[in-house]
Amino acid sequence: MVYLLPLEKLEISPIGVVKRASSNEDVKNKNLVSRIVLKENLAKALDGIEEFSHIFVIFWLHKISDNGKAMLKVHPRGRTDLPIVGIFATRTPNRPNPIGLTLVELVKREKYILWVKGLDAFDGTPVLDIKPYDKWDANINAEVPEWLAKLSDQATLHP
Amino acid sequence: MVYLLPLEKLEISPIGVVKRASSNEDVKNKNLVSRIVLKENLAKALDGIEEFSHIFVIFWLHKISDNGKAMLKVHPRGRTDLPIVGIFATRTPNRPNPIGLTLVELVKREKYILWVKGLDAFDGTPVLDIKPYDKWDANINAEVPEWLAKLSDQATLHP
Repeated sequence: MVYLLPLEKLEISPIGVVKRASSNEDVKNKNLVSRIVLKENLAKALDGIEEFSHIFVIFWLHKISDNGKAMLKVHPRGRTDLPIVGIFATRTPNRPNPIGLTLVELVKREKYILWVKGLDAFDGTPVLDIKPYDKWDANINAEVPEWLAKLSDQATLHP
Repeated sequence: MVYLLPLEKLEISPIGVVKRASSNEDVKNKNLVSRIVLKENLAKALDGIEEFSHIFVIFWLHKISDNGKAMLKVHPRGRTDLPIVGIFATRTPNRPNPIGLTLVELVKREKYILWVKGLDAFDGTPVLDIKPYDKWDANINAEVPEWLAKLSDQATLHP
């Protein structure tokens, strides 16, 4: 069976950037509020987003090295006590396209700026897209591997 | 207040492509199964994904025109009876970076191919990333606008 894959590269322009109170902040602290500053000409594209309590942020993990992008398997969360699995079975930032996806709480919107709680992205991270969270995204019956289910009560980040 | 935005364009290489039984299939039919065919050298990166029942697919909406990318406001789902809102308050494919995000059921994995149910992407769609669905993504208390809440019992796609 022969599949023709799209080989051409795609070009993406960030819609904005993550700004944190300090570049030293612990980005894994889910209680911290950070800002997403969009390009000013996109302000109108946020109209109505205030009515959502939660949004997905899709961002570019700009600090990942070429070695990180080439990784195929990892211990989830860097924990050697967890089984090594393929990177697409984890949320590790080390992936061929270092795209981050995080569900955050929308605190406030002001013109072209969003204040969000729980975004695990560094200061200066390019933002690619923002999507409202919707009931379709909530699947409480989803099954996960045993190694992940064991961790789910712990106050940690994504695998 | 002056914000320095990242202006440089990012380059992304698709990790694979969507293959459907027919290019005429109704991609909005959530009961249909389609395949995600990854590049063969990424096969190992899928190891362990079989243990997840649901995954997020992040893909490139390659049929969106420059006019679509320039849109700032839309009627959700093209329905003129719904209030016009900013595109970031909807899941419309018309957005500056035409990135799609869909939660799908993982039916089967075979080497570098995933069979998934409910992917609303055309045959030939470039796939950018795959992420396992995790309890962190399930927020059943999320609030949505009234226009969307009214629709949530209807068997429709994302706004």
